[in-house]
Amino acid sequence: MPTDLIHGAAVIGQSGGPTAVINESLVGAVLALQPHEAVTAIYGARNGVRGMIENNYVDLTSAPDEFLNRIAATPSAALGSTRDKPDAAYCERIFESLRARDVRYFFYIGGNDSSDTCRIVNELSDQAGYELRCFHIPKTIDNDLMENDHTPGYPSAARFVAKAFTGDNLDNRSLPGIKINIVMGRHAGFLTAAAALARQHQGDGPHLIYLPERNFEPDKFVADVDAIYTKHGRCLIAVSEGIHNAEGESIAHILSQTGEVDDHGNVQLSGSGALGDFLANLLRTELTPEGGKPPRVRADTLGYMQRCYPDASPIDQAEARACGTKAAQVAMSGDLDGSIAIKRDSTTPYKAEPSVVKLTAVAGKTRVMPKEFLKGNHDVSEAFIDYLTPLVGELPTVESFS
Amino acid sequence: MPTDLIHGAAVIGQSGGPTAVINESLVGAVLALQPHEAVTAIYGARNGVRGMIENNYVDLTSAPDEFLNRIAATPSAALGSTRDKPDAAYCERIFESLRARDVRYFFYIGGNDSSDTCRIVNELSDQAGYELRCFHIPKTIDNDLMENDHTPGYPSAARFVAKAFTGDNLDNRSLPGIKINIVMGRHAGFLTAAAALARQHQGDGPHLIYLPERNFEPDKFVADVDAIYTKHGRCLIAVSEGIHNAEGESIAHILSQTGEVDDHGNVQLSGSGALGDFLANLLRTELTPEGGKPPRVRADTLGYMQRCYPDASPIDQAEARACGTKAAQVAMSGDLDGSIAIKRDSTTPYKAEPSVVKLTAVAGKTRVMPKEFLKGNHDVSEAFIDYLTPLVGELPTVESFS
Repeated sequence: MPTDLIHGAAVIGQSGGPTAVINESLVGAVLALQPHEAVTAIYGARNGVRGMIENNYVDLTSAPDEFLNRIAATPSAALGSTRDKPDAAYCERIFESLRARDVRYFFYIGGNDSSDTCRIVNELSDQAGYELRCFHIPKTIDNDLMENDHTPGYPSAARFVAKAFTGDNLDNRSLPGIKINIVMGRHAGFLTAAAALARQHQGDGPHLIYLPERNFEPDKFVADVDAIYTKHGRCLIAVSEGIHNAEGESIAHILSQTGEVDDHGNVQLSGSGALGDFLANLLRTELTPEGGKPPRVRADTLGYMQRCYPDASPIDQAEARACGTKAAQVAMSGDLDGSIAIKRDSTTPYKAEPSVVKLTAVAGKTRVMPKEFLKGNHDVSEAFIDYLTPLVGELPTVESFS
Repeated sequence: MPTDLIHGAAVIGQSGGPTAVINESLVGAVLALQPHEAVTAIYGARNGVRGMIENNYVDLTSAPDEFLNRIAATPSAALGSTRDKPDAAYCERIFESLRARDVRYFFYIGGNDSSDTCRIVNELSDQAGYELRCFHIPKTIDNDLMENDHTPGYPSAARFVAKAFTGDNLDNRSLPGIKINIVMGRHAGFLTAAAALARQHQGDGPHLIYLPERNFEPDKFVADVDAIYTKHGRCLIAVSEGIHNAEGESIAHILSQTGEVDDHGNVQLSGSGALGDFLANLLRTELTPEGGKPPRVRADTLGYMQRCYPDASPIDQAEARACGTKAAQVAMSGDLDGSIAIKRDSTTPYKAEPSVVKLTAVAGKTRVMPKEFLKGNHDVSEAFIDYLTPLVGELPTVESFS
């Protein structure tokens, strides 16, 4: 135990889109902080930075283990989340709130926007000469944080996507047709790619996987689907909500009726069936034989279920907990600030540990799928399957006639 | 064992939208038929009646238990399904196929359209003087078959809907806004109503539940949502895909871009996000304060995942199996034909058994939610919760601050 630890309160917040395991990270940090003498109080900020400027806190200083463990097993952000991105004036208000409570340890659980918030708060505290130790704890179903082998939240979302496609592949086989499923992921295709885990038998879908790491060309899409449909009499397709044309324009954005943009400049992609319906109509129009019946085409948008469906991957739960614990341990070791990142030691047997990296290495940056995880223009590689398989927990085994 | 049992082959088919447990019924019937001397062969018809007219069968006469039990645990129709509705000419072709194989036992697993197919086949065999024992085995996530307390497939779909709303309620609480989820169910609201099982704590959603048993009035809908949103700062809404106006016109139908109708005259309701997006846009438009920002409104359509997500209710699996077994047992008892129906003996402790009813009591008819399961215009009653709870298996328990 270093002797130069500053005494003061700790604050912890949750930010961005929730996940099935974000409360594990919260509870990991709180339980690791509670025994420390230097930590005079532990406050959970309701709705992230917004709770800080509104002095809206939950006192977790003496929250009992049993209650916290029930919170940990609950999906979504129990403290509430936020999409606010603090500017200079907003940060001043955060500091007023933190100073008033003598907060010296700041933990923020979130994705790349949230790690950037953490970086800004850290820089402003440095400029103000206020000793504040800032830690970012990773969380995102998009799996798009730099420095991380993978991020807490992604394995559970990938598990949902794999199971959804397992069921939907069997559904599509029993009543053949063309089926499109739109999967979350703004810039990175990791979550859409998880659909590939549904393949267990010869001919199983998804037969085509469209990722934002590739340009989306409607003509080629129609030709790809036509080829599979002609061969198998059916076609199951995984499409990332983030697909874009060669100019980088999001296909969903072009279709967006709302034009709604959040404080981070992100356009609304989820919570609408527009992209799926557009692609379904495109296929229906282009693949109807002259004078014939249109093929059976359906589109589902997997939607918000992907991030909070209550069936977390056990490894994801354990790792999210470990990331929260690690952040608290590092804060209590005298280091000044940092971002927790999961590093993989080996795949067989699977072994990974949280470590600490610089905030600036993660903040505001986006990781996409590496080339070795892609196969051609509409599939993923065996290397990706090997990477993902140990993360998602046990998946159902299905049987088939023929 | 009756001595007058006619010797011959048995054929079994699966029809209509698949479920997570329809293969349990298939395997229940096959395993119960296999030991009987009167049953000279067991054929699984691929894609229901279509396999019969195309002579496309799987020989199940000696299929091993272990393999069949793996099939049983697999969601969706392992033999393939169909939406074909046989007319007289179609039925003639069915008979040619059945006669050629000396089929004397006919089992058809499906919903109300399928039970009607079964009834027609039965009547035509009577007219032709061909001894054919016909049994309908119930299956539908819509839970809309007459004579049944509930139907195999419904509990598993209800389990998925309850879990999806459990996660989505927590998601919506962490990032408050208005959220619409569209749930399957063409005429009956049972599946949409299952969303109510997500409520565990004060203020939990779904806050509003719109069922096809009530007329849907857009003005009232907007006012209902406004009241909840003003009170709670958020609103989670369950909407049946089958909602209709006072004239009985389906809201989704009015919006339908495809105008696609299946052989049963059913309009395509699923596989499109149009209804959710329409309702979201309506709320966005009507609830934007003058000169202010529109509220955050999102819509998801739960889609095909509802019927084949690989996480079946254990009771549903056991009951689907028991319905298949019962059909085979009744056929081997000398009875001529019938439909298997689940009858509930008691709710506490839960006890139910399959029994036999007349085909004409089920065929082509639709059951909707009884009045005692409804509460006002946009909720369900405690009686419905009591009815549903024992069917879905264990649901996750969630914890909450405050």
